[in-house]
Amino acid sequence: MQLIKTIDEARRVIGQVRYDGRKVALVPTMGALHAGHMSLIQAAGQACDFIVVTIFVNPTQFGAGEDLGKYPRDLERASEMCRLAGVDVVFAPDPDQMYPDEPMTWVNVEGLTEGLCGESRQGHFRGVTTVCAKLFNIIRADIAFFGQKDAQQVIVIDRMVADLNIPLKIVVCPTVRQPDGLAISSRNQYLSPEERKDALLLYAALQECRRMIDGGCRSCPELIGAMQKVLGQSPRIVPDYVSIVDAENLKNIETIDQTALVAVAVMVGATRLIDNIIVDLNKPDDI
Amino acid sequence: MQLIKTIDEARRVIGQVRYDGRKVALVPTMGALHAGHMSLIQAAGQACDFIVVTIFVNPTQFGAGEDLGKYPRDLERASEMCRLAGVDVVFAPDPDQMYPDEPMTWVNVEGLTEGLCGESRQGHFRGVTTVCAKLFNIIRADIAFFGQKDAQQVIVIDRMVADLNIPLKIVVCPTVRQPDGLAISSRNQYLSPEERKDALLLYAALQECRRMIDGGCRSCPELIGAMQKVLGQSPRIVPDYVSIVDAENLKNIETIDQTALVAVAVMVGATRLIDNIIVDLNKPDDI
Repeated sequence: MQLIKTIDEARRVIGQVRYDGRKVALVPTMGALHAGHMSLIQAAGQACDFIVVTIFVNPTQFGAGEDLGKYPRDLERASEMCRLAGVDVVFAPDPDQMYPDEPMTWVNVEGLTEGLCGESRQGHFRGVTTVCAKLFNIIRADIAFFGQKDAQQVIVIDRMVADLNIPLKIVVCPTVRQPDGLAISSRNQYLSPEERKDALLLYAALQECRRMIDGGCRSCPELIGAMQKVLGQSPRIVPDYVSIVDAENLKNIETIDQTALVAVAVMVGATRLIDNIIVDLNKPDDI
Repeated sequence: MQLIKTIDEARRVIGQVRYDGRKVALVPTMGALHAGHMSLIQAAGQACDFIVVTIFVNPTQFGAGEDLGKYPRDLERASEMCRLAGVDVVFAPDPDQMYPDEPMTWVNVEGLTEGLCGESRQGHFRGVTTVCAKLFNIIRADIAFFGQKDAQQVIVIDRMVADLNIPLKIVVCPTVRQPDGLAISSRNQYLSPEERKDALLLYAALQECRRMIDGGCRSCPELIGAMQKVLGQSPRIVPDYVSIVDAENLKNIETIDQTALVAVAVMVGATRLIDNIIVDLNKPDDI
């Protein structure tokens, strides 16, 4: 496995791989690798001949007051995990490689980034899409792998790739959960033992929603009310949003009659957690 | 020469050329080809092995009340000119190829697009950068060729390419002029014989500026005043802007002591014309 720090070397190494006719996978990460990332790397290895994991804590997707400073950084640990998982290249540029000058160019996906996490995280998705466009142009992979846990992110990136004719396939892998159901996230490590227990209520709320839908409920206000009630069981949970939206255009819906995204974001103490399920009445449960 | 209408076929044909190790040139146009475009095609032929000319009247870069509807379209004439000039592929997609859905994703270069033409043409550069990002992703050329006449456009695109790590070299070719000095533009054909005479005052104003600088004048307000006076010789000319800006960041400057862009935009009757010179005190005149 090669650890590459510069854009020029990444282009050189991966260009040769592409020239050799090998299929290149990209798994973009911020480096605090967990089982969710490992499942992406595994999927990448099954679909492609050469796996590139990028590790970059992208400052432009963190808002003022967010956790850019304390976000966990341990390149050695991450590299070792990648090596053991069969990754071919870890591309871990420093911020001045990615942003040698104050960036002037922004890629923005309008319409999909104003609601859900976009509402409380102003500028977040603009930072995500811009850095992804950059990474896509540097790595020029055939397929990029993202996790369903960041539901809005994958929908936004998928739309960017389509709109800008980026020659890249986006594959979305299922959310990986702890045995008790908590969606695995780099930010789980911020939680105190007490908060860790409270965090389970996100999963419980989504399960309750699923159960009601299976029982025939189609009214989104009713479903949302029930989920809010579950989250309300802990005074330490402050919901940001509990939403049911069309899974394509992310607009709020009143009734479950199309493929829906049920998405929850809460503050547990100082930690922001998100989780979601896709409800497709024609498909079996994913939770 | 191949005339290609679909993105899939363009990717297939040009992908093979790239795979064969040939260097691909891109000359993006809106199809009303003139001597300026031909000079770009000539430069492309000198630098590369395979020339792609794109022809697309991009609706998203025209504002309300601009000339999208009457913009000259003659694909047969343009194709024939390309064929005679040794072009290998003309890519002329229909609007529904380029925008199958209402676009949600926009590439915007902030800071460089608010002044000069960006001020009176709201949204214009966002349309230009977005369609260029799309064309760059479809054609994947090694070098793209643009004309210096659209000075702000080339600076904006150059910045987008750098900021987004697009693996493409931008080459800027000199403005091509009629024997009497008028910068060649697709929009010149809108001019009545009388307006055509008035349009020469753009060139005269830039010449006057150059003459004053050669004579030692360094004061931008003085230079701008002199240019406005020249333009004022015709009542049919309504200046949009007469500006002297830093040639890198496009900010207004007070004194000529760095590389400066002297740029003029006017309405001559219903037609908008632009022209410019770069003033580099260390280099010989370009006008």
